[in-house]
Amino acid sequence: LADLQALGEIGRTPAGGLARTTFSAADFAGREWFRQRVLDAGLQFYEDGAGNLSAILGESGPTILFGSHLDTVPNGGRYDGALGVLSALEALRTIQETGIVPPVRLEVISFTDEEGTHSSMIGSRAVTGALTPDDLLPIQHVLTPTPYTPASILAAKRNPTDYRAFLEVHIEQGKRLERAGIDIGVVTNIVGIRHFWLAFTGQANHSGTTPMDQRTDALWGAAEFVGRGKTLVMERFTPGVMNCGDVQVAPGAHNIVPGQVRLAFEIRHGTTAQMDDMEQVLFALAQETADQYHLRLSIESLGHVVPAELDDQVIAAIERAAATLNLSHTRLMSFAGHDTQNMSRFTPSAMFFVPSVAGFSHNPQEFTRDQDVINAANVVLQTVLHLIEATDQ
Amino acid sequence: LADLQALGEIGRTPAGGLARTTFSAADFAGREWFRQRVLDAGLQFYEDGAGNLSAILGESGPTILFGSHLDTVPNGGRYDGALGVLSALEALRTIQETGIVPPVRLEVISFTDEEGTHSSMIGSRAVTGALTPDDLLPIQHVLTPTPYTPASILAAKRNPTDYRAFLEVHIEQGKRLERAGIDIGVVTNIVGIRHFWLAFTGQANHSGTTPMDQRTDALWGAAEFVGRGKTLVMERFTPGVMNCGDVQVAPGAHNIVPGQVRLAFEIRHGTTAQMDDMEQVLFALAQETADQYHLRLSIESLGHVVPAELDDQVIAAIERAAATLNLSHTRLMSFAGHDTQNMSRFTPSAMFFVPSVAGFSHNPQEFTRDQDVINAANVVLQTVLHLIEATDQ
Repeated sequence: LADLQALGEIGRTPAGGLARTTFSAADFAGREWFRQRVLDAGLQFYEDGAGNLSAILGESGPTILFGSHLDTVPNGGRYDGALGVLSALEALRTIQETGIVPPVRLEVISFTDEEGTHSSMIGSRAVTGALTPDDLLPIQHVLTPTPYTPASILAAKRNPTDYRAFLEVHIEQGKRLERAGIDIGVVTNIVGIRHFWLAFTGQANHSGTTPMDQRTDALWGAAEFVGRGKTLVMERFTPGVMNCGDVQVAPGAHNIVPGQVRLAFEIRHGTTAQMDDMEQVLFALAQETADQYHLRLSIESLGHVVPAELDDQVIAAIERAAATLNLSHTRLMSFAGHDTQNMSRFTPSAMFFVPSVAGFSHNPQEFTRDQDVINAANVVLQTVLHLIEATDQ
Repeated sequence: LADLQALGEIGRTPAGGLARTTFSAADFAGREWFRQRVLDAGLQFYEDGAGNLSAILGESGPTILFGSHLDTVPNGGRYDGALGVLSALEALRTIQETGIVPPVRLEVISFTDEEGTHSSMIGSRAVTGALTPDDLLPIQHVLTPTPYTPASILAAKRNPTDYRAFLEVHIEQGKRLERAGIDIGVVTNIVGIRHFWLAFTGQANHSGTTPMDQRTDALWGAAEFVGRGKTLVMERFTPGVMNCGDVQVAPGAHNIVPGQVRLAFEIRHGTTAQMDDMEQVLFALAQETADQYHLRLSIESLGHVVPAELDDQVIAAIERAAATLNLSHTRLMSFAGHDTQNMSRFTPSAMFFVPSVAGFSHNPQEFTRDQDVINAANVVLQTVLHLIEATDQ
């Protein structure tokens, strides 16, 4: 709790928010603070070529990795990411204080740029070997004033055979746990995300002299897709979600019938099969509404995030830990992205959530109660002990 | 026809369109060409302080005024406006050639800036006394290099008791006459236009971590309003029209649930009573859809154009003229604005349309067949003769 408080002062904005965006002065101040905390605890400090920071206990053996990230969005709060790193550090200090030398290497990690100020989750992508030189071209100019280079980032790739598991704790960034009065949310899947532009094209026309029944109004098709799409997703794909987050109308004037409407369209669901099904059904609906209004539909595909199905044994270890601590727990899906999704393709991985008050996130109002912070650290500790035990066998 | 051809060369763009936007060099070239045509015909030329140009036959007596405008939109065609001025000039020359001295003063007029390059229909608003000094403040800088000043424009106001009637012919700018195979469309009303911004406000949120049933998505309400509104207008208010010509979403990103959606909303109908009814019903629908999705609705009212109900006697004169010429005719409403709507509040006024091929307008593809141009001039001539007859009695 004291660490969260101290770190929460680094990067504070005048308005009371927190800004430790990756490679900002505040980010480097936060990194230096973390390095000191690691050294103060008598743990080994390590920084790889991607700027991932580690606290290490143990010299050799298979590694159990656990942590999260220290960077924030431009006007964020003090729990997103920091809770995961500092709970992990606290758990590691607790194990160290027992004096017991575990038969594994324990490494707490803070990944670079989870929030994607420059390149989303670049730290965990580097560790897991998911980066190519081309991925780094767009941020080359950002790296110049830093200690990191494209070559050093690529060299941060690790060997999965050296690792046994990865664990992350994070605030929920939603209201499900709070509403249900449950302490721990054990994440089974991290959603995949697919982004598209759906363009409905009709004929721009004079809004006065074109009778209603002679229009091919692109907005009529797009609007009907928004309405029917959301109902269909709720009926058939819950807890999957869709969003139409932006609308661009051309030509775009009070007195011109819309000739083209572009919808910024997103879907999220827990498995690739569900994503494929949802995409197919919604594209068919978009085509149906386009046909109904004599519009042309074109679909442009943007970036995709592949869904991650988390590891049953790490999930079981978290559930055992919660039970040991008499904490209520439930399984749920993460609808936001986390470093765990990259780690899950590298080593058996899972994560859990603690409640966010009123669900605020990426917002200075972000808050998690002290008891839930304590629960986070205790569940991390117990889970890591269960994972050590399992490695031992 | 030769005059239309000649004027159609003034302001031609390389791409084959026509650009005689008000106070451009091409506009002044067109004005000078018109002045020469008037003087060549042995008619009096007159220009008032608002830049309205006239050809006059007769020294005294009540005046019958007829005409349209010579300015164009930036990429327009050669018929919009020009047809009305040149048909009127041809009719006046024909009367002059008979040598008969009519018992009235006949004035063909071309109004300044009907298209609103700087200030919509400023010429007819000046003549009818509808302008205030405040209306001219926004265009003061535009006037500096011209012969016109705010004072001269305000001084162009005329006395309605000097006038007996106003008549305009215009291309339809739609397809109703062409589809119905009718020669002449006699306009009974010029639609009123009301512009609004409808703002639906919910709560911006993370598009992943906010379950579908927990969202207050502003786009859901706005989209439903678009769909139900258009159906309601078609069922209850035809031939009135509505348009949602632009959509502005905030914050506006693939991964953020829309917090606010602003719709550029327009309604058009033939009478103030119909406009009021339509506005009330559609605002109630907007409120209903906002309530349904737990959104706040706010409505900002922009400029309004009052609908014009045209004069029965001038309408009857046009219909008699068409009948005399064995031309088929029908009554219809104008869904675009015209100088006639200002003139109708000044002196008994009406207008008629001739067909536009495929309805193109404000477009280089604008075209009206020669026979329809000839019909336009003949109906103007016969209508003016009927109006002279009526004045005589």
